[in-house]
Amino acid sequence: MVDKKKKRRVVVASGTFDLLHLGHVRFLEEAKRAGGKDAELIVIVARDSTVKARKGKTPVMPEDQRRALVESLKVVDEAILGLEDFSIEKVIEKIEPDVIAVGHDQDGIEKEVMKATKEKKINIQVVKIGRFGKRELDSSSKIMRKIVEHFNR
Amino acid sequence: MVDKKKKRRVVVASGTFDLLHLGHVRFLEEAKRAGGKDAELIVIVARDSTVKARKGKTPVMPEDQRRALVESLKVVDEAILGLEDFSIEKVIEKIEPDVIAVGHDQDGIEKEVMKATKEKKINIQVVKIGRFGKRELDSSSKIMRKIVEHFNR
Repeated sequence: MVDKKKKRRVVVASGTFDLLHLGHVRFLEEAKRAGGKDAELIVIVARDSTVKARKGKTPVMPEDQRRALVESLKVVDEAILGLEDFSIEKVIEKIEPDVIAVGHDQDGIEKEVMKATKEKKINIQVVKIGRFGKRELDSSSKIMRKIVEHFNR
Repeated sequence: MVDKKKKRRVVVASGTFDLLHLGHVRFLEEAKRAGGKDAELIVIVARDSTVKARKGKTPVMPEDQRRALVESLKVVDEAILGLEDFSIEKVIEKIEPDVIAVGHDQDGIEKEVMKATKEKKINIQVVKIGRFGKRELDSSSKIMRKIVEHFNR
């Protein structure tokens, strides 16, 4: 068995993080906790082009601002922009995470991780993070709807 | 002269922080820097009722979420909700800050601080923080306008 240097476990979480809200922060906090004490949290922030290709429209906040805002959170050690052609396989190759945290609305990513770890015969823990509370403003699209109602009143 | 225990200089900044964006973070970072190395940054987040009374409408995000989100920023040591009847005088009495940071759109607060420090004959440094960049999305109202345009398209 190869001796591994004792190092911090690396947790990877990803998302768009458009209109940052408390649900995002709680998601990231729980993701980091999944890596145990002293884990390192690396967040991959989706590029505008990736979001456009996947959801049909560009985020409100541009990618560099979304990335910088996420990195300014206490819980985040590093935030990086995703690759233009984002794939969880490439993330695994590049970052070699110990844990990948998957949000309640990221089932697709979960399947991709399962497939990649099986193919590569590597061991990565996939942690599914629940939705936070049943509050009204825990998703960017709900926040946008509220803003639009606000303006049209 | 009374001997003061050597302690971290306390900087106070305040605001609504509705729809948190990078302009807010840069404002808080510069505010903290104004307190010198190892300063402590306390942020007063305006209550919904105060914003309603001053600006005529309630923020999109409720006060407890705005406060918690601000406190989750690396640069912030503590975020507290303001008093219902917010006045900079009471802030000065309660927190005894060394520095009060004032944003580009907070001229009212600057005058209040000047008046209070003069009356009480205390020495508080008032630091005016400039606007960040000439970017498009450095204010909550601009972000809201963009969202509304987005939806009505």
